Amino acid sequence: MNIVELIKKKRDGKVFNIDEIKFLINQFTGGKIPDYQFSALLMAIYLRGMNTAETSALTNSMLNSGKIINLTSLKGSKVDKHSTGGVGDKTSLIIAPIVASAGIYVPMISGRGLGHTGGTLDKLESIPEFRTDLSLSESMRVLKKCGALLIGQTKEIAPADKMIYALRDVTGTVESIPLITASIMSKKLAEGIDGLVLDIKTGNGAFMKTQEDSIELANSLINTAKSFDKKVIAFITDMNQPLGNYIGNWLEVYESIQVLKGIVKNDLYTLSIKLAGAMIFLGKKAKSLREGEQIARDKIKSGEALKKFLSIVDLQGGDVNYIINPERYPKPKYSKQVRSYKSGYIKEMNTYQFGMASLELDAGRRTKDDIIDHKAGIILYNKIGDRLSKNDIICELHSASKTKIKLAEQMIIESIEISKTKPSIPKLIKKIIQ
Amino acid sequence: MNIVELIKKKRDGKVFNIDEIKFLINQFTGGKIPDYQFSALLMAIYLRGMNTAETSALTNSMLNSGKIINLTSLKGSKVDKHSTGGVGDKTSLIIAPIVASAGIYVPMISGRGLGHTGGTLDKLESIPEFRTDLSLSESMRVLKKCGALLIGQTKEIAPADKMIYALRDVTGTVESIPLITASIMSKKLAEGIDGLVLDIKTGNGAFMKTQEDSIELANSLINTAKSFDKKVIAFITDMNQPLGNYIGNWLEVYESIQVLKGIVKNDLYTLSIKLAGAMIFLGKKAKSLREGEQIARDKIKSGEALKKFLSIVDLQGGDVNYIINPERYPKPKYSKQVRSYKSGYIKEMNTYQFGMASLELDAGRRTKDDIIDHKAGIILYNKIGDRLSKNDIICELHSASKTKIKLAEQMIIESIEISKTKPSIPKLIKKIIQ
Repeated sequence: MNIVELIKKKRDGKVFNIDEIKFLINQFTGGKIPDYQFSALLMAIYLRGMNTAETSALTNSMLNSGKIINLTSLKGSKVDKHSTGGVGDKTSLIIAPIVASAGIYVPMISGRGLGHTGGTLDKLESIPEFRTDLSLSESMRVLKKCGALLIGQTKEIAPADKMIYALRDVTGTVESIPLITASIMSKKLAEGIDGLVLDIKTGNGAFMKTQEDSIELANSLINTAKSFDKKVIAFITDMNQPLGNYIGNWLEVYESIQVLKGIVKNDLYTLSIKLAGAMIFLGKKAKSLREGEQIARDKIKSGEALKKFLSIVDLQGGDVNYIINPERYPKPKYSKQVRSYKSGYIKEMNTYQFGMASLELDAGRRTKDDIIDHKAGIILYNKIGDRLSKNDIICELHSASKTKIKLAEQMIIESIEISKTKPSIPKLIKKIIQ
Repeated sequence: MNIVELIKKKRDGKVFNIDEIKFLINQFTGGKIPDYQFSALLMAIYLRGMNTAETSALTNSMLNSGKIINLTSLKGSKVDKHSTGGVGDKTSLIIAPIVASAGIYVPMISGRGLGHTGGTLDKLESIPEFRTDLSLSESMRVLKKCGALLIGQTKEIAPADKMIYALRDVTGTVESIPLITASIMSKKLAEGIDGLVLDIKTGNGAFMKTQEDSIELANSLINTAKSFDKKVIAFITDMNQPLGNYIGNWLEVYESIQVLKGIVKNDLYTLSIKLAGAMIFLGKKAKSLREGEQIARDKIKSGEALKKFLSIVDLQGGDVNYIINPERYPKPKYSKQVRSYKSGYIKEMNTYQFGMASLELDAGRRTKDDIIDHKAGIILYNKIGDRLSKNDIICELHSASKTKIKLAEQMIIESIEISKTKPSIPKLIKKIIQ
């Protein structure tokens, strides 16, 4: 096989066979195909696409570039959730303890934030002493003991994905459905799971801006998961406004604790129950999605989910005192309330800009080497459809820098559209695909 | 400007402005855009295309990456010809002396052969002592003295093209009309010419396989030339069989001498007259193409063209004795006649395979470092439409290796289709576009 001929094949819109895809991934990870050839191939894949069989083969080759965690020694179902990412999306922190307390293993491998979206790892690391870099043997111990695990991607898992993603990021080839599918699925399948719940975000704060693209991605992920005999359910959910009311690492842990305590019942709660319910259903602890959701609600009501969260934090080295008494957490150096300059209803929120504003406050990172301020972020007092009088508080900004707060405030004001008439509120769950 | 954003722009089918193209070429040639980003861009250009304005801007940026030869000190027209390349295409050797003897400057910069096609430089270098690597001042002296010049691309001319072509060659992005256009035109415009005749080959031995693609390329080249105020005429010509009867470096010089002597009047002669006539017309030495062709024929008949060729060879250091007495040229070590295995008419010739067979005989190079055997090649005794009896000679193979002759013979036999009925002969000049 010849790399130039294979590039031409995809360039001309033809279909790769399994051996060709295996060759491409093995040669690239083995350093035998230079970046400049692989990036031309990635652009050809971006523009010409890949069918279901090609996407599965690509996923398989990327999966097999690294270790696959063997969970067969654990009796019972292993189910995970994956979200395509958005602003204020902290459902993992709520879902993992709920589902684990329902008797299902949740071996969750998450990523860091980059750009306008936050990352589960960064949020967890805002808990003092919490470790996300457990070894495989430490991970097995935690998973066995409490049924859930919240760690970062290790070097052993799907190294091909890491190499390919680094190249896609700098060559304009990120937003490709087959490439996104293989990237997500190769990592998730390496977890040794039986089932997967997908949360595909759609809207102005998501990577997929239109519902059409989101459905296409959902179908691609579902087809690939099924080709590996994994049970899967996909939710298309709204990202036209931040999820929940807190954006920023510790702020999101704080809101998750409030949800786990049963105090907060906002859109974050609703979505967490939906996703956890689906995981419980896939893990065979419920006969229907509805029954799964009821179990999820019960786990919060009974306090079992919160107890499980404390147990995860404790086993992963985190200081549980801050979970028990979150008000003890250090306060931000500066905070400022952003007020409405006129009266009316919040009609639209530029969610991407909200993410960028939280980045400006140092709650996220622009490059991989940026240091995050765990206390920084935004508390939203109002969301789409809420009525504001002039001077009402829209949100509160937290940062260690007054200049950054000023910049973020300007961004927030420009991101919110206020109308005189009551707008329609975006539907949280747009579609469920099985 | 940001390279990733520019890659995405072309990926999404948008149009670059002049400044963006200038930025891309300057940054790439300056080593500030790595190959892996530029190759993704090349694939996006390949698949999304470029309009006339973009192609002109690209040509201009590539042209300005190097020196432009200043020929304003020479009074009179400067006209060149460019062929997209084929098998047996040695018209440059015939045309340059004809047109120069008609009082027009022909500053011809040619390339080397690679793959199935030969290169003018390799052919010229089969003449003992002939130098194609003249400095710019030596070139000016030759051009002033005899009106024609046959040299290779210097480092100073369009260095961006050299860098980009090297990357296109290994990333499956060669066959792109805007990229081909900018590559050809940036080099031709650097010659300081007023007019250009284009010979766009079409058929199974050409880079453009279909007449449709050839016309598209011709129009792209014409539009670009016109945007630089250059006079231009394009010929779409047949490459469904080798041009003339000789393939291989010295063999092609030999055939050119025969044409210049007025001895041979085959398809090579016909096309040379057509192209030279158009150059004479563009150079204002004739009022019509027809008159230009008549002058071209006269220059052969009078012996002026042959005399001019001797003068070019002499001024570029070549041993003219071999031109005067070509039979003195060293003979090939081995030669073999390929005979017809049945009777009938030659219906089709796989011209690409003929090129590959001559490569097999060492008349060409697979990689840039291969050494050419100047004596190697093929003499065709019959072409499409010719009637063969069983055991008639189809062609003669020359090489320094018996094994290679055997392999080439097999390739030739497989490349020729013999039919019982008389086939139609491909038209030599398919279209003239002005």
